[in-house]
Amino acid sequence: MLLLNLDHVAVAVRVLDEALALFSRLYGVSPSSREVIEADGVEEAMILVGGSQVQLLAPRHPDSPVARFLARHGEGLHHIAFAVPDLDAALAHLASEGAELIDREPRRGGGDNRIAFVHPRACAGVLTELVEVR
Amino acid sequence: MLLLNLDHVAVAVRVLDEALALFSRLYGVSPSSREVIEADGVEEAMILVGGSQVQLLAPRHPDSPVARFLARHGEGLHHIAFAVPDLDAALAHLASEGAELIDREPRRGGGDNRIAFVHPRACAGVLTELVEVR
Repeated sequence: MLLLNLDHVAVAVRVLDEALALFSRLYGVSPSSREVIEADGVEEAMILVGGSQVQLLAPRHPDSPVARFLARHGEGLHHIAFAVPDLDAALAHLASEGAELIDREPRRGGGDNRIAFVHPRACAGVLTELVEVR
Repeated sequence: MLLLNLDHVAVAVRVLDEALALFSRLYGVSPSSREVIEADGVEEAMILVGGSQVQLLAPRHPDSPVARFLARHGEGLHHIAFAVPDLDAALAHLASEGAELIDREPRRGGGDNRIAFVHPRACAGVLTELVEVR
């Protein structure tokens, strides 16, 4: 598999505006985009940092997966995302290696990119998203 | 503060060779460097992914902070690192904002770079390293 980039590292936060204000105050950064993903029950903001991005993820309702993560772990690192050139080929390779996939087929994520999540059990406890950046 | 890059995202793993073999098998990546940091009780491997890096961290002994992390949380995302142009200025800014610092003064990290860690309580539960890349 070819990994093009570490597309982003995602941080689960309780309140998006407060987290953005904190990142701005401490690190002088501001979001390049902000988007509600209703299917995942999240609002997310992307912060460009050099050649990669920090994604802040906040729950839209108490039943969303990010809300459950926050209830269990509190705020903190949530997942990483690798950019790949061919998501179908990447998923086929992972399946052939026996890796546990959360999404067996690509679906639409932020920025309307095709994405799929790989289960933390597949690789060192790290929830991993693959993104086919358009 | 100026952030130059998301230098790396670090993953705590139990056995470095096994984790490297897994990343190789699933993602076709291999380490660009590998180093023992005795002061931190870790062996670390850096994997270049586009413009950033994945760092795998394995404990050298059961009393190291990474061993304690593994005992509490299991394998998984451990910290992120931002590259900054001037680490002294960055720490002074964070201190002036009341951010809780683990390292009040720069110390030497991997690659003999000057580094300092910021406490997870300072920013959304994320253990954050600042690196002055040489």
